[in-house]
This record gives sequence, structure tokens and C-alpha cells, in this order.
Amino acid sequence: MPSMPGPRTIPQATVARLPLYLRVLREAEAAGTATLSSEELAHRAGVTAAQIRKDLSHLGSYGTRGIGYDVDQLTREIGRRLGLDEELRVAIVGAGNLGQALARYGGFSSRGFRVVAIFDTDPAKVGTAVGDTLVADARKMPTVVASQQVDIALITTPAPAAQWVADAVVGAGVRSILNFAPTTVTVPAGVSIRQVDLGIELEILSFYRKRVAPASVV
Amino acid sequence: MPSMPGPRTIPQATVARLPLYLRVLREAEAAGTATLSSEELAHRAGVTAAQIRKDLSHLGSYGTRGIGYDVDQLTREIGRRLGLDEELRVAIVGAGNLGQALARYGGFSSRGFRVVAIFDTDPAKVGTAVGDTLVADARKMPTVVASQQVDIALITTPAPAAQWVADAVVGAGVRSILNFAPTTVTVPAGVSIRQVDLGIELEILSFYRKRVAPASVV
Repeated sequence: MPSMPGPRTIPQATVARLPLYLRVLREAEAAGTATLSSEELAHRAGVTAAQIRKDLSHLGSYGTRGIGYDVDQLTREIGRRLGLDEELRVAIVGAGNLGQALARYGGFSSRGFRVVAIFDTDPAKVGTAVGDTLVADARKMPTVVASQQVDIALITTPAPAAQWVADAVVGAGVRSILNFAPTTVTVPAGVSIRQVDLGIELEILSFYRKRVAPASVV
Repeated sequence: MPSMPGPRTIPQATVARLPLYLRVLREAEAAGTATLSSEELAHRAGVTAAQIRKDLSHLGSYGTRGIGYDVDQLTREIGRRLGLDEELRVAIVGAGNLGQALARYGGFSSRGFRVVAIFDTDPAKVGTAVGDTLVADARKMPTVVASQQVDIALITTPAPAAQWVADAVVGAGVRSILNFAPTTVTVPAGVSIRQVDLGIELEILSFYRKRVAPASVV
């Protein structure tokens, strides 16, 4: 086995593409496909084959000449590198429509993400059930985050509350945040934050609105 | 002025990055920044400076040596190329939590996307108000899509309904679809579809969970 690069050497842009490859691989697996060439994988993921080969070389995966990548093996390898071989415990902050929708989102639970806590400041919402989870008082965040071993917090409040919420979840010990509020929040060094911007998807679609669409816009 | 490449010559991957640059430019504009070097723009967008220069060359934008890109001019140019200089009329299909959340999402209205119709099949939801819009019966889709001049449809139903809904909105004349249901749907040639996969963001965060996070994960 060749020396494998350590996890720290995977570039940020490659990390951001690995879940796309994982989605393609899972779909191929579900369709009973055993191997995929870098060309097929690239086509389905909407990148070049050279990009695929370069990205996967960071994982020490090189495929087999003339055969391609083993779908099952590559699925497990990418999942392991992304840390998806363990259950990830998610807290949702903001029990409005978006928070409730995400708490019930089928695309999370099917992939090992488990919603273990939902917080809100509204006394009318605290104590009500969203799916299997009771909404907790946001003031109890430090206790609940610790007892529920929360890995990732999703901010689903309106924009004006987002920075306050980010400070609160960081204060409660959460090191990974996904912000759905349409505003930029800042976090201290050592905390990972990703901004989900649903407007970006609409802007990309806007480009193709008056053009002949490509066969598939991934 | 050098001959400008036509809109069709912009590669799909570049189109997908233009909204990221636009977000960085808008933030710079809001902060009163007049110019950005390709290095600064690249750093804030999380790509390489070479990538920025290549992407923007497809738009005929080359910046000024030693000064960089004019923030205001580039913002307008990218917006124009993406077709954002016109209002985009959006229909939401599925008036559950996610549909209601998107109907009220601040990140759409602030960028020229206007929700003009919400559909559902549930008689208990038809006729109720979501924001300023009344929920319409999904069976009236062809009439309402035509009268409201819908440009883009968002599918926010549970996964099992998504393909049926995609067929219905295409039948009603919509050519651009954003699918939030956690399942793949197929559309005929000439229709653009993008799959929003919220699990992907969690998978990327998962990677950084046990590592020192980069200064900013965009």
C-alpha cells in the first residue's frame, strides 16, 4: 500500500466535492452498478475526469486501469474520510417553519445525521413536539448541548437573531455550525461555519432560464 | 473593447461559481470596498486567484493591473449575465413547513426573486395565506403558472411526490426547477433542474469536526 496522505492534506475544495461524489456513488450503488470509470463519475458529478482523479488521489484511491473505481469500496472510503462512519448529533436552533422542516428532512436521517435537540426562545414553542423531539428553552443550551453530545448546530432563526445564536451555541461548546439565516455570522478561530445560501441555487437556474439547458444541471 | 464571448460559451462550472463571486462582491459593496484584487476575491470566495481570472475572462472582465476589479461594475456585470436584472417569478409546490419557510425566506426577496404562487393538494391548505400569497389547488397549476408568468418552480413536497410534481410543473410550462425533496427526479430535455441537497453541507462540516478548522469554511 502506498503511503497515504494524512487527513490534513486534503484541500478544502476537494473536501467540498467529496459529498457530491458520495451522492453519485450511492445512486450507482442503489442502481446495482459495481464499478465506475473516472469519466462516468465525472460526468455524473458535473466535474472533469482529471479533477476526480486528482481529488481521489488525496484519499489514496487510484482506481484500477481499464475497470475504474469500485463503487462500494469508494463509498466506504469517502464516508470514512468525511467522518460519516459515526452518527452525527445535530441541534436545530429556531423552531420556526425552517427548523421544523429540517427536523423532519428525510435527507438527514437517511445519512446518519440525528436531530437530538431543538431550541427556541418563544415560550409558546418550548415544550411542544417536533417529530420525536421536544423544543427546549434556548437558555438551557449549555446543559442540553452537553447532555445530548451535540456535534453540529443548525441556525434556522431570522437573520437578526443569527449572530446572537451563533455566540450562544459556541458558548455552549459546539464547534461546527451550519447557518441558514440569510446573513453572515462570525465565529472564533477553531469553530467551523458554513453559510447555506438558497438564493445561489436560484441565481444559477436564472442563467439557464433563457438558454437551451444542458442535459442535466447538477 | 475586445470581442466578448457569447453567453453560451460560459462553462457550467463557471456559471455555478458566479453567484459565489456575486455574494462576495455584494458584501464588499455593503462594506464600502471599491475594488478587489483577484487574490482578495479568490480568498473570500474560497477558490484560487487563477480560477477567478479564468472564470471572469469568460465574461470579458479582466480587471485593471495593480488595482483589481471594480466592485460595483463587476457586481452589475455578473448580475446581468445571470439574468438577475429582471425580476424572477417563483412558484412553490408543497405548502408544508419547507414551502412556507421558503415563501418567507429573506434571502430570496432581497435578490429579485418574487414568490408569486404556492400550490398544494391538501384541501385544508388550499386557500390559506402564506405571507402575501394564497395557497392554490395543485390541479390549477397550468392556469396559475400561465397567469402568474412563473419562471422557476421549487419542489418542497415529501420525496414520494417529487416526480409527480416535476411532471406537473413541466406540463404546466415551467422550464426551471429547484428540487428540495431528498430524491432524484428526471425531466425532459430542455428543462433545467437543480437538486438541493442539504445533507451535503452537513457532510462537509463532518470532515472538519475533529480537525482544526480553516479560518473560514465558505
